[in-house]
Amino acid sequence: MAPAGEKKNILKRLDAGEVVIGDGGFVFALEKRGYVKAGPWTPEAAAEHPEAVRQLHREFLRAGSNVMQTFTFYASDDKLENRGQTLSFTGRQINEAACDLAREVANEGDALVAGGVSQTPAYLSSMTEEEVKAIFMKQIDVFVQKNVDFLIAEYFEHVEEAEWAVQVLKASGKPVAATLCIGPEGDLNGVSPGDCAVRLVKAGADIVGINCHFDPETCVKTVKLMKEGVEKAGLKAHYMSQPLAFHTPDCGCQGFIDLPEFPFGLEPRILTRMDMHKYAREAYNAGIRYIGGCCGFEPYHIRALAEELEAERGCLPAGSEKHGSWGSGLSLHTKPWVRARARRDYWEKLKPASGRPFCPSMSTPDSWGVTKGHADLMQQKEATSKEQLEALFDKASKGN
Amino acid sequence: MAPAGEKKNILKRLDAGEVVIGDGGFVFALEKRGYVKAGPWTPEAAAEHPEAVRQLHREFLRAGSNVMQTFTFYASDDKLENRGQTLSFTGRQINEAACDLAREVANEGDALVAGGVSQTPAYLSSMTEEEVKAIFMKQIDVFVQKNVDFLIAEYFEHVEEAEWAVQVLKASGKPVAATLCIGPEGDLNGVSPGDCAVRLVKAGADIVGINCHFDPETCVKTVKLMKEGVEKAGLKAHYMSQPLAFHTPDCGCQGFIDLPEFPFGLEPRILTRMDMHKYAREAYNAGIRYIGGCCGFEPYHIRALAEELEAERGCLPAGSEKHGSWGSGLSLHTKPWVRARARRDYWEKLKPASGRPFCPSMSTPDSWGVTKGHADLMQQKEATSKEQLEALFDKASKGN
Amino acid sequence: MAPAGEKKNILKRLDAGEVVIGDGGFVFALEKRGYVKAGPWTPEAAAEHPEAVRQLHREFLRAGSNVMQTFTFYASDDKLENRGQTLSFTGRQINEAACDLAREVANEGDALVAGGVSQTPAYLSSMTEEEVKAIFMKQIDVFVQKNVDFLIAEYFEHVEEAEWAVQVLKASGKPVAATLCIGPEGDLNGVSPGDCAVRLVKAGADIVGINCHFDPETCVKTVKLMKEGVEKAGLKAHYMSQPLAFHTPDCGCQGFIDLPEFPFGLEPRILTRMDMHKYAREAYNAGIRYIGGCCGFEPYHIRALAEELEAERGCLPAGSEKHGSWGSGLSLHTKPWVRARARRDYWEKLKPASGRPFCPSMSTPDSWGVTKGHADLMQQKEATSKEQLEALFDKASKGN
Amino acid sequence: MAPAGEKKNILKRLDAGEVVIGDGGFVFALEKRGYVKAGPWTPEAAAEHPEAVRQLHREFLRAGSNVMQTFTFYASDDKLENRGQTLSFTGRQINEAACDLAREVANEGDALVAGGVSQTPAYLSSMTEEEVKAIFMKQIDVFVQKNVDFLIAEYFEHVEEAEWAVQVLKASGKPVAATLCIGPEGDLNGVSPGDCAVRLVKAGADIVGINCHFDPETCVKTVKLMKEGVEKAGLKAHYMSQPLAFHTPDCGCQGFIDLPEFPFGLEPRILTRMDMHKYAREAYNAGIRYIGGCCGFEPYHIRALAEELEAERGCLPAGSEKHGSWGSGLSLHTKPWVRARARRDYWEKLKPASGRPFCPSMSTPDSWGVTKGHADLMQQKEATSKEQLEALFDKASKGN
Repeated sequence: MAPAGEKKNILKRLDAGEVVIGDGGFVFALEKRGYVKAGPWTPEAAAEHPEAVRQLHREFLRAGSNVMQTFTFYASDDKLENRGQTLSFTGRQINEAACDLAREVANEGDALVAGGVSQTPAYLSSMTEEEVKAIFMKQIDVFVQKNVDFLIAEYFEHVEEAEWAVQVLKASGKPVAATLCIGPEGDLNGVSPGDCAVRLVKAGADIVGINCHFDPETCVKTVKLMKEGVEKAGLKAHYMSQPLAFHTPDCGCQGFIDLPEFPFGLEPRILTRMDMHKYAREAYNAGIRYIGGCCGFEPYHIRALAEELEAERGCLPAGSEKHGSWGSGLSLHTKPWVRARARRDYWEKLKPASGRPFCPSMSTPDSWGVTKGHADLMQQKEATSKEQLEALFDKASKGN
Repeated sequence: MAPAGEKKNILKRLDAGEVVIGDGGFVFALEKRGYVKAGPWTPEAAAEHPEAVRQLHREFLRAGSNVMQTFTFYASDDKLENRGQTLSFTGRQINEAACDLAREVANEGDALVAGGVSQTPAYLSSMTEEEVKAIFMKQIDVFVQKNVDFLIAEYFEHVEEAEWAVQVLKASGKPVAATLCIGPEGDLNGVSPGDCAVRLVKAGADIVGINCHFDPETCVKTVKLMKEGVEKAGLKAHYMSQPLAFHTPDCGCQGFIDLPEFPFGLEPRILTRMDMHKYAREAYNAGIRYIGGCCGFEPYHIRALAEELEAERGCLPAGSEKHGSWGSGLSLHTKPWVRARARRDYWEKLKPASGRPFCPSMSTPDSWGVTKGHADLMQQKEATSKEQLEALFDKASKGN
Repeated sequence: MAPAGEKKNILKRLDAGEVVIGDGGFVFALEKRGYVKAGPWTPEAAAEHPEAVRQLHREFLRAGSNVMQTFTFYASDDKLENRGQTLSFTGRQINEAACDLAREVANEGDALVAGGVSQTPAYLSSMTEEEVKAIFMKQIDVFVQKNVDFLIAEYFEHVEEAEWAVQVLKASGKPVAATLCIGPEGDLNGVSPGDCAVRLVKAGADIVGINCHFDPETCVKTVKLMKEGVEKAGLKAHYMSQPLAFHTPDCGCQGFIDLPEFPFGLEPRILTRMDMHKYAREAYNAGIRYIGGCCGFEPYHIRALAEELEAERGCLPAGSEKHGSWGSGLSLHTKPWVRARARRDYWEKLKPASGRPFCPSMSTPDSWGVTKGHADLMQQKEATSKEQLEALFDKASKGN
Repeated sequence: MAPAGEKKNILKRLDAGEVVIGDGGFVFALEKRGYVKAGPWTPEAAAEHPEAVRQLHREFLRAGSNVMQTFTFYASDDKLENRGQTLSFTGRQINEAACDLAREVANEGDALVAGGVSQTPAYLSSMTEEEVKAIFMKQIDVFVQKNVDFLIAEYFEHVEEAEWAVQVLKASGKPVAATLCIGPEGDLNGVSPGDCAVRLVKAGADIVGINCHFDPETCVKTVKLMKEGVEKAGLKAHYMSQPLAFHTPDCGCQGFIDLPEFPFGLEPRILTRMDMHKYAREAYNAGIRYIGGCCGFEPYHIRALAEELEAERGCLPAGSEKHGSWGSGLSLHTKPWVRARARRDYWEKLKPASGRPFCPSMSTPDSWGVTKGHADLMQQKEATSKEQLEALFDKASKGN
C-alpha cells in the first residue's frame, strides 16, 4: 500500500487521470435496513447503530468505492433539531461517530474519507449568510479535528447556499468537491448548470458536479453542461456525478421528490446492474472521473461501476470474487435456457418487464410549488465576504 | 423475557394462534451486498464473512422476524462441491458457522433458530433415497449438535425429495416445517398442491407451505390449495408462506427462474412496502400463521408484514422506531404536496410507474425443459423405509 | 358464377370443408363513421342512411366476406322503442331496408345473406317465452319475406334466450347459426360453454359459436369448449367465431362492457392485421370454419383473415389488389429502413408500443352487478313448447 | 345558405375569426377500407372507386368538416408513374375525378373545396426548380379548370420545395395554404419552424402550418413556433394544423415514418375522441383557427373537434345527432356502472389500457438516414425567379 500522504490526495488522483469510484447513498440504503427514518432522513444511526453503518461502509469498500463519505447527510444542528423527535445524541456526537466509522473502514482498504455537508433548513428559512455559514462551520470543525481527507458540499438546490458552503469548506485548507441536486434546467432560482459550476469553481471548489434527484442519464447530461460552462469561462475543475439509482425520465425540475412514488413506491424504477454499466461508460465518456451514486444505490450497483471500468482502473473490486461479470456466473446452471443467459449481449438487450400490468410506465410529477416570490427572496440575500467567512471559520473551529 | 423452554417452541406458538413472522431470503440480499455469487447461490459467507451475515440477521430481527433461519441454503456437501470453485471451508464448517450466527442474533431478541435444508443435486442426478437422505443427515447432524429450535425443509420442486427430507428431519425429534417452491399447478411431476401437502404431513411435517419461485399472491393461493387438501384428508397442520418479493404474474409452472429477467433484471418487479401489507393481510385471512419471505425480501419488507399485523401480534418491531406506518413520516416534509402523501389511502391506491417506457409489463417465460422422461425417472425411484432412514440418521448423528 | 341454389347454401359449403369468412361488426364501424349512436347501438341507419350501410357492406365483400349479415342488430321492436328517442322509421322498415342492402351487395359478389336477431330487452325484463318469441318472430317474418339465405341468432348472454331464438328461427326452415357473447366461464347463469352448445344444437342450431364481448384468443378458446361439449354429447355441428377486434386479457365474465374503456377509450386495444393473421390460423386449427368478426373489425381486419387463409380458400379477396401481404407493399419505399419492414418476420415479431407511457397495460373491470337473484329469476322461466312456437311463427309470418 | 361567393372564401372566414374545421387523412382511412395501397399511398381510388371516396367525403362533411380536400395526395405524375404498377387512369383523370367528388359533396353542405399538392419524387431526385414546378403546374391546371375554392400545398419535408409549390399555387390567384410535415426541430435541412413559416409567407402563403408526421401535441407546439417566427418578422398569416391521430411521443425528427410500428402496427397509438377534445382546445388556445387532421383521423375524430368547439363555432355538426358528447349516450345503459361513465369527468381522467402487457409504451425510432451530403445537395439548388414561374404556369394552364 502506498504511504498515507501519497495515497490520500483526491486531487492528485484526479490530476493523474485516475477514475475515482464513489460510494452509494446511505439514507436510502439504511432506511431499507431499518436505521433511518424516511421523512427526516437524518443520520443519527452513526451514533445509535454503528455496526449497521460500519457494515454498509464495508460493503461499498468491497464493491470498489475509493471514497468513504462520512454518514453526515442532514447532520447540521438546525436539521437535527427540526426533525420532530428528540435524539439521544448531539449533532457533534453524530458527526464524530460518522467520521470514526468512515475512517475505520477506509483504513481497511485503499479509500479516502470525505466529510460532507448538505443544504440546511436555515437557508430555506431565510437566515443570513453568516448564520448559515456558522451552521456549516460546526460540522467542518469536526471534520478538521477528525482529519478527513477532503470535503464535499452536496445536495444543494440553490447555488448560492452551495457557494457559501464551499467558502466555509475551502477555508479548512482541504480539497473541496461541490455537487448540486439539480437538472439541466438549473437550480431553483433558474441559474443554469454552466453558471452554477462557474460560481462553485470561483468559490473554491476543486471538483464540481451533480448528486441525487435525477437518474444517471440526466445527471451526466447536467454535468456535461457544467463542464461546458467551466471551460467556456476559461476555468478548470474536475467533475463528479452521484445520481439516483432510479429511472426518472418523467420528473420535473425538482427531481424525484415530486414524483408520486417518492419515497415508498420507487421500487419499479430501481436500476439494474446493466443500467449501471451504461451509466459508468457514459459518465466516463463525458469526462467525469469521480463516478459514484446517491439514493437507491446498493453495493452491487457500485460494483457494476467498478467492473465496467476495470480496464481504465486496472483492477476489479474485492466483491467481484462473488460476481461473474455480465452474468457469467450462470454458466453452470442446471437449466440450459438459464445457462444461455450467461453472456453480455443477453443482458445488454434485455428490456426488463415490471410484472405490473396495472401500472403505467411514467407518472406526472406533483405540482411544483416554489413560487417566484421565494426565488426572489433567495436572490436578495447579501453576499458575505471571504474575510467574514474566514473569521467565522476561525471562531468556530477554535471555539470548540 | 419468557424462560427459554417456553419461549422457543414454534408449535406451541402456532397452536396458541400466534402469528409468527419469518425472515427474508439471504442469498438474494447478500448477493446485492457482495457476499453470495449468483449462479451457485451457496452460503459460504457464513464462514467467510460472518459480520455480513450477522448484520443481516440483526436487521431481520429488528424488522420483526421471530425466526432466524440458519444461512444454510444449498449447504449440502454435494451442492458445495458442485459449484465450480473450491471453497476455503468445509460444508460442516459452513453449517456450524451459520448455526452460531443465527443463535447469537436470536438470543439478542425473542427469536427461534431454525435449521434449514433444501433440494440437492443428488436427487436430480437420480441418486437413491438412501444416498439423498445421507446428504441431508450430514446437515441435520450439525443442527442437532447446535441445538436449533426447529427444522425447515424448504425449496423443493419434487414432493418426493421433500418427503425424504421431512423423514430425516423428523427423526431428530424437533418440530419440522416443509415448504415447496411450487405454484398452483403442483410439483414438477404434476402432483397437486393438496396432494403434496397431504404427503408432507403424513411424512411428519408439522407445518407445511410454500417458499420462493412465485409472488405472494400466487404463494398464498397455493397454500390455500394445500390447506384444502390437508383438511379434506382429515389431517391437521400449520401453514406457512415465504414468497418472493417480486411480482410474477407472467411466470409458468417453474416460477421466476424461467423469466428472462432472472436473476439480474428483476428490479422492476420488486414489491413495495404497500404490496407487503396486502400480502400479510391476505396470508392471514387465508389461515396462514407463519408469514415470512424469500428471495427479494429486504428488512423493510419484513417490517411491513409486522406492521400490518400489529393488532394481531400485539406489538410493533424495534425497527418501527425508524418508520412511520403508511407514510406518516412524511408529515413534516417541507413541501406541502409531499406532506399530502402522509396517509394510508394515498399509498394503497398508488400505481407506481416503472420509469421504463421502453419495457413491457410482462414477459414470456423461457421454454420449459423438464421432459416427461425426466418426470418418469423421478417417479420410479424406490421408497426407502422409515427403518432404513432412522438407521441412517443414527449412524450420521453418532458418527460425528 | 355458380347457379344461385348451389352457391347459396351455407351448410353445403361447411359440409364440404370450405372456410367461410364472415363480416365485421356494423355498429362499431358505423358509430365511428357517424351513423350509429353509442349507447342504444340501434341500426336505424339502414333506413336513414342506406348509402353508408351499403358502402360498409361493399368494403367487407371486397375484403373477402362470404356473408353479408343484415344490419339488424338490436332491431327488435322492444329495443327500438326503448332507446329514448323517436325514430323516423318503423322496426319493420328498418329490417326490410337492411335486408335489401345486404342482398344488393351480396349479389355484387359470391356472398350469402344472413338475417340476424339478437338478445332482447324483453327477456331481461322477464317477459314470458311466448312474448320473447313473438318479438323474434316479427323480425323473422321480414327475413322470410326477403328470402335471406340463412339466419343467425347472435349476441345472447343467456343460453335460454338463445334457445328460444333458435327455435323461432328454425321454424322458418332455413339453416340456423347461433352465437353467444360469453367467455370460458359460461353464460350469465353459469351454464358452461359445452352445455350451452349442446342446448343450442338440440334446439336446432346447425352452426354454433361465439361472437362479441371477448378478444379472438378468448373466443377461440370458448368455441373449443363448445366443440368438446357437442362432441362429448355425440352431436354434430359446425363452429363459428366472430370476436372483438380489441385485446381484452383483463376482462371478467361479462367481457369488454365492464372494462373502464368501454366504449370510448378502446383504441389502444385495437388489433393489428398481424393479430388477425394469428387469429385466423388459431381459429382454423381449432376446427372453426366460419371465421368472422364483431365490434372493432374494420374491412382490413377481415381482409387479413382472408389473406391468412389464402391457401385453404384457394383465392385472395378483391381488396388484396391494394395490399401487399405482410408488408410487401413497403418494398419500394424510399427509406431503406422502411423497406426493411417489407417481410413477414418483421411484423410477426413486432411488439407495438402504445405511445402512452402514462397509461397502464391492463385495467380492472368495473364491478359485476348481476345478482344471484337475477340469475335465479332467469332460470325460473317456463319453457314454451315447440308447438306453441310454431303456432306463433305461423301467426306472425302470415299476419303481416 | 349564404350566396356562393360569400360562403366560399376561406380567408374571409379566417379574417372574421371563424374556426374552420378541416377533414381527416384519406390515404390511411381508405387503406383500412381497402382502396389505397400502403407503400405507394397513391389516390387512384378517386377514379377507380369513386363511391368509396365520395362516402368518406360525406362522412367528414357530416362530422363537421368545412373543407373537402381533393383526394389528390401524391397525385403528381412523377409519383403515380413511380409506384411500381400501371394504373388504369392517367394522372389528369385522377385529379379531375378527385375534384368532382370533392365538389359534389361540398355542395351537399356548407363546405369549401381545396385542391392539394404534396411533395414530389422529382425534388428528392434533385430535379431543377423548373422541373419540379412544372409537375405542380399540371395538377394546378386541373384545380383551376375545376374551380376549387382554394389551394393547399401540404406534406413537405423541405421548406424549399414547399416555397416552390406555394409560388406555383399563388400564381393561380386563389388563396393558398401551406403545411410542412416537420416537428419543432425544423425541416430536413434544419431550417427552424419559425424560419420555414416566414419563407412560406414571403412566398405567398396566406395560411401556414403543419400536417402529418407527428401527434397533435407536437404539431400544435410546432405551429406555435411558426407563429412566433412570423410575428417576429412583422408578417401576418393564418395558422392551421392537421396532425396525425396517433400518439408519437417517442419519434425523432422525421416523425412516425421512422417508428417501428409504421404503418401496420400503429393501432395502439390511435387517439381517442377525448384526446381530440384536448387537441382542439390546445390548437384553439394557440391561435390556430384552421383545425383538422391527417393520417389516422376517422370521421368521429373530426366530429370530436367540432363538438369541442361548439361554442366558438355556434353549431354542432350533423353527425352529432348520433353522438352524445362526452359519453352522455350511455345514460340509458342497463348496467349502472356503465351509466356511471356518462360524464365528461370520467372520460377526461381515463388512462386507457392497451390490453397488451407484453408490449412497451414507447419505441426507439429506426435510424435516421438523411445524410449531410443530401442536405447540402438540397441547398445548392438555384432559385427560380417569380417571372420564370409565372411563365411556366401560363404555359401549363393554357397548354391543356
